[in-house]
Amino acid sequence: MALLACTGTVRAEDGYALWMRYAPLEPALAADYHTRLAEVVAPDQTPIQHAAREELERGLTGLTGSAPRMHVAPAINPSLVIGTPQSSTLIAPLRQELDALGDEGYLLRQTRIDGRDVLLVAAPRDIGVLYGVFHLLRLLQTGASLDALEVRESPRMRLRVLNHWDNLDGYVERGYAGRSLWDWQTLPEWRNPRYTDYARANASVGINGTVLNNVNANAQSLAPDYLAKAATLADTFRPYGIRVYLSVRFSAPIELGGLKTADPRDPEVQRWWQHKADEIYARIPDFGGFLVKANSEGQPGPQDYGRSHAEGANLLADALAPHGGVVMWRAFVYAHDVPADRATQAYTEFAGLDGAFRPNVILQVKNGPIDFQPREPFHPLFGAMPRTPLVMEVQITKEYLGFATHLVYLGPLYEEVLQSHTRGQSATVAQALTGMAGVANIGMDRTWSGSHFDPANWYAFGRLAWNPQQSVRAIAADWAAMTFSPDPAVVQPIVGMMMGSREAAVNYMTPLGLHHLMARGHHYGPGPWVDGGPRADWTSVYYHRADRDGIGFDRTARGSYAVGQYAPDVAARYGDLARVPEPLLLWFHHVPWEHRMASGRSLWDELVGRYSQGVRQVQDMQATWASLGGRVDPQRHAQVTAFLRIQLREAQWWRDASVAYFQSVSGRPLPAGESAPPHPLGWYERLQFPSAPGDGR
Amino acid sequence: MALLACTGTVRAEDGYALWMRYAPLEPALAADYHTRLAEVVAPDQTPIQHAAREELERGLTGLTGSAPRMHVAPAINPSLVIGTPQSSTLIAPLRQELDALGDEGYLLRQTRIDGRDVLLVAAPRDIGVLYGVFHLLRLLQTGASLDALEVRESPRMRLRVLNHWDNLDGYVERGYAGRSLWDWQTLPEWRNPRYTDYARANASVGINGTVLNNVNANAQSLAPDYLAKAATLADTFRPYGIRVYLSVRFSAPIELGGLKTADPRDPEVQRWWQHKADEIYARIPDFGGFLVKANSEGQPGPQDYGRSHAEGANLLADALAPHGGVVMWRAFVYAHDVPADRATQAYTEFAGLDGAFRPNVILQVKNGPIDFQPREPFHPLFGAMPRTPLVMEVQITKEYLGFATHLVYLGPLYEEVLQSHTRGQSATVAQALTGMAGVANIGMDRTWSGSHFDPANWYAFGRLAWNPQQSVRAIAADWAAMTFSPDPAVVQPIVGMMMGSREAAVNYMTPLGLHHLMARGHHYGPGPWVDGGPRADWTSVYYHRADRDGIGFDRTARGSYAVGQYAPDVAARYGDLARVPEPLLLWFHHVPWEHRMASGRSLWDELVGRYSQGVRQVQDMQATWASLGGRVDPQRHAQVTAFLRIQLREAQWWRDASVAYFQSVSGRPLPAGESAPPHPLGWYERLQFPSAPGDGR
Repeated sequence: MALLACTGTVRAEDGYALWMRYAPLEPALAADYHTRLAEVVAPDQTPIQHAAREELERGLTGLTGSAPRMHVAPAINPSLVIGTPQSSTLIAPLRQELDALGDEGYLLRQTRIDGRDVLLVAAPRDIGVLYGVFHLLRLLQTGASLDALEVRESPRMRLRVLNHWDNLDGYVERGYAGRSLWDWQTLPEWRNPRYTDYARANASVGINGTVLNNVNANAQSLAPDYLAKAATLADTFRPYGIRVYLSVRFSAPIELGGLKTADPRDPEVQRWWQHKADEIYARIPDFGGFLVKANSEGQPGPQDYGRSHAEGANLLADALAPHGGVVMWRAFVYAHDVPADRATQAYTEFAGLDGAFRPNVILQVKNGPIDFQPREPFHPLFGAMPRTPLVMEVQITKEYLGFATHLVYLGPLYEEVLQSHTRGQSATVAQALTGMAGVANIGMDRTWSGSHFDPANWYAFGRLAWNPQQSVRAIAADWAAMTFSPDPAVVQPIVGMMMGSREAAVNYMTPLGLHHLMARGHHYGPGPWVDGGPRADWTSVYYHRADRDGIGFDRTARGSYAVGQYAPDVAARYGDLARVPEPLLLWFHHVPWEHRMASGRSLWDELVGRYSQGVRQVQDMQATWASLGGRVDPQRHAQVTAFLRIQLREAQWWRDASVAYFQSVSGRPLPAGESAPPHPLGWYERLQFPSAPGDGR
Repeated sequence: MALLACTGTVRAEDGYALWMRYAPLEPALAADYHTRLAEVVAPDQTPIQHAAREELERGLTGLTGSAPRMHVAPAINPSLVIGTPQSSTLIAPLRQELDALGDEGYLLRQTRIDGRDVLLVAAPRDIGVLYGVFHLLRLLQTGASLDALEVRESPRMRLRVLNHWDNLDGYVERGYAGRSLWDWQTLPEWRNPRYTDYARANASVGINGTVLNNVNANAQSLAPDYLAKAATLADTFRPYGIRVYLSVRFSAPIELGGLKTADPRDPEVQRWWQHKADEIYARIPDFGGFLVKANSEGQPGPQDYGRSHAEGANLLADALAPHGGVVMWRAFVYAHDVPADRATQAYTEFAGLDGAFRPNVILQVKNGPIDFQPREPFHPLFGAMPRTPLVMEVQITKEYLGFATHLVYLGPLYEEVLQSHTRGQSATVAQALTGMAGVANIGMDRTWSGSHFDPANWYAFGRLAWNPQQSVRAIAADWAAMTFSPDPAVVQPIVGMMMGSREAAVNYMTPLGLHHLMARGHHYGPGPWVDGGPRADWTSVYYHRADRDGIGFDRTARGSYAVGQYAPDVAARYGDLARVPEPLLLWFHHVPWEHRMASGRSLWDELVGRYSQGVRQVQDMQATWASLGGRVDPQRHAQVTAFLRIQLREAQWWRDASVAYFQSVSGRPLPAGESAPPHPLGWYERLQFPSAPGDGR
């Protein structure tokens, strides 16, 4: 391919290189960087050191157009020195200062050695050096100045983990980017080079763990042949600081071990998990631990034996503790036989268990109390379990946000939750977290994530897990510059599209605090009319509660009192119709159609207006993208253009179907200037999509 | 990527370019070709002309390292002229000679015009010119001499069609190369450039049709939204001479049309199909037609209404006839409630219908009477239906030949059937055919076919469908030269591996005429012990009939008399234990274990010996491949090496499990020098592979 490329048959950009394209910079800048960084001193003793060295050489060569001279020992006139106090004599003097940065931290510093300018990438440990190299390459890709460079970085969260909902047959639940990256059939013999590129991309944003298999777990993934396959992946990821975790099925002792029970109190069950843990660590010495979905949506769990979630989690935690592994126990539970508001059930189940878990149990809580909706308030468990380490689970894949064909940058959604105040003006959700778990949007699609913009959500997840205080606009700008071009005439319009895109989706799907209005099962397209079926809390009418008089779920003291699960000041604000933020209005309140909104319009007019506004916002994105015609390579420009056409068609569909349905309930006329849906409600209700992607199996 | 490639970050060869890499030739040859072909005259008026012109420019530039000068009108000193009598004044004089080549034929000729050497690529129609351009590029890629070049080509078969067993959700039944190429979710808006590369690859070997969806068809594929998607694919393929076909579900009038019946005699049903055909041709004017699997393995069909296959096929044929479309009706039928030998049922069902079909019905018959086994005799219907056009269906995907991880070149399998004599010494299967249908091995895997060698089977299928008389060794040599390197030191060893690979698989899976011994359902690995279940003819014991005294299926007059379905001379040879070819021995005869084989060994010793020989043959392939270390690029060499490791592990597994099982039946000692299976039979029987790829859904 290289040869082809150099002999005229230039391959179009297909997105595979992600934000690590290392495309040539404009000549003056390239020349300047090359002069400053011509002589590189980089150790090459360990796999991580080798990875850092290779990445640096690849990046500098691509960006500046000429390869740096690479040395392992201090050369004459070094200009860039990377390493740790152990691996580099030039960095050894910084030991004390570096130790303060912690195991994963690093330092970038422009300094002088023997009267010459030298750039240092220094860290207490090899992995920090690799992170520092990626940071430096980001600075170069975005055309930053290296003068007087002084950067000190340490991650704010310990666990920065991807969750792959990948089944062993290659199918990805809620995946919209092709089949699973993990080709279990050819493992362990074949290590697809793509596994290494996956690890590079993760390391470049500081992701340090990956759960390989679906939380709806198959016990087989703990069988010896699959552990051998997982071990090969772990070996491939290790040089990039990424630990492997597995989702486990709580009843595995029965299905795999042939035991009669999986009761946490059964000594045989305890022994089985201990031996399984020993077996895993014999193959994967740095295995991260288990992720568990128990007694949730039909999965087995400790409650099958009358035991608590704490007893179930502690069973696994005790097996992993001797090896340093952790249990990430999901709080996503709700029972259809419980009449209580689904939004309240996780809190009811877990809040009382604070302090009952082993130290190596981490509770994994979704960002909001329902399920990855376009907008939800933060989950009430954040800030409510001071004695339990918490991981926030967010979706990177867009199950409820238009799949891969809708351009929706999730940075603002993540930021909104991370910066929410759990009480008073100080405590935020971010402060309550030990880590973040992102449900991956990665598959075998050439773009990795199913479109050219979805990798931005993978990227932003990693950057925010490293430091939730970062501006998601700045993160978007970095990503756009590295992915498309550092030219401000490209970056600014793209960042504009990205920053407005999530609110656009909220508007054309579920404005003003509405939620869970999608079609049943595959969740593709609108379904505000969805009713009946196996359980009420899987319908739309359960959530919007629209009738002739008004709409919204009353979660105040007069209703389900879900607000009562928040700290008093938060509960008071959310529970007060006069003070609740309009974006959450219908999440917490059942409101009359004629209710006056801040705009002065009635709720009904505002609702219809928001749906139409969402459609216009997509049209604006189209116009912006069209204006970038000459500045973005043709193949990627064409694909994004096509996907925006799909997004506009589906945004219009969401708007028309939703307006048609809610009008059939409210019986109110459309506001002036609003066009009537082109089809009667029944037409929208009859649409069927039996082959929509990502549906559960 | 091009930029990266040219600035040092060279991408490894990943197989995407298939046999169209157009990698630089060795300098002297490149220079010679460039001088001879520097001035190209190629029309650019039609989409097909544009495709031919582009391919020529891409190929010449890549192979010679410098771009040719492209002209649309006769230039001064033309050196390469392509076109038709209509599109080129220089070719117009050849009109009469060209017309004799037929619609798809072409001529390559080195000639002199105005005292100068000129190479002509001439054809009666644009598509022939495109085929001719690919032929010329093949000559250049393989380093052929252009002196006195004179090539006249016309396809021997009219229909050269791929069958994709792709479901609308992207899952490929019996697919081992990732998900479906067709991303129905993003069609019709997004035309993946890969669709065009798919069309280029097909056109390069003369494939002129593609059935987009699984023969186990979903009626949805005939719904308006899916027809719009299919039309976009048809538009993309049209410039490459490829027509789109669809598999249809016989009961679609009920599921899609809301009718109460799909009875061929019902006027409403007839009208429904007529209107559906009109609707399709309004969108796809050159739509090819329908492929139908009816009353087979649970699919609906005319027999549900007491009508014959002919009535069912004619119903659809009448709807398509006004538009010039055809019906490809599959003869793959067998009923579990019929006690007769499954191998005899298709013949019994269809032979009597010869002459009962409309002229635009083509009967699609699998190569053998069972189901794509490593070796089968030719299907008795070939040569038995003189008044019915026949298409031979072969599998390119390797459902029964080790999936994508076993290196098995299918050319010899195809050739063996095509050259089989249906009667006497003249008539061959090839002569009985109007076309060939290949069950595609294509998916989103970067290699297209799941490995670096499986594209050879796609390639060989196309070449043989164009001309079944071609040597499959020569075809393998062309493919290897274009895919890896024209260096004989690379081509010869690779061709050696390929030519022996199919017999190796027969040996370690089903030697001496054994068949259908694979594991149940997913067909992954050995299952000679498979018994019971829903139907006898889905078990292994039904086919091998091994007992204490002997083994094999007696299909002579004393048995099922399947031999009686062949012409008398063929029946006599197959039915005679003394004359039946040993490779088919146990297909036609139940033979005592002590039966003397040509080798002088007993059948039992021979059987065990063949299993072990198959394993040794894989070891030989490994040695050959290892010797190519320096001559093949590292990435592809590493992947093939890994896959051969998998193949050896699984060949050993087949050998050990089969020997263990048959020994448990025969009770005989292993021949001297044969090692005992490392595990007891029960161990092999207990192996489970719930997530094996490609299983039906």
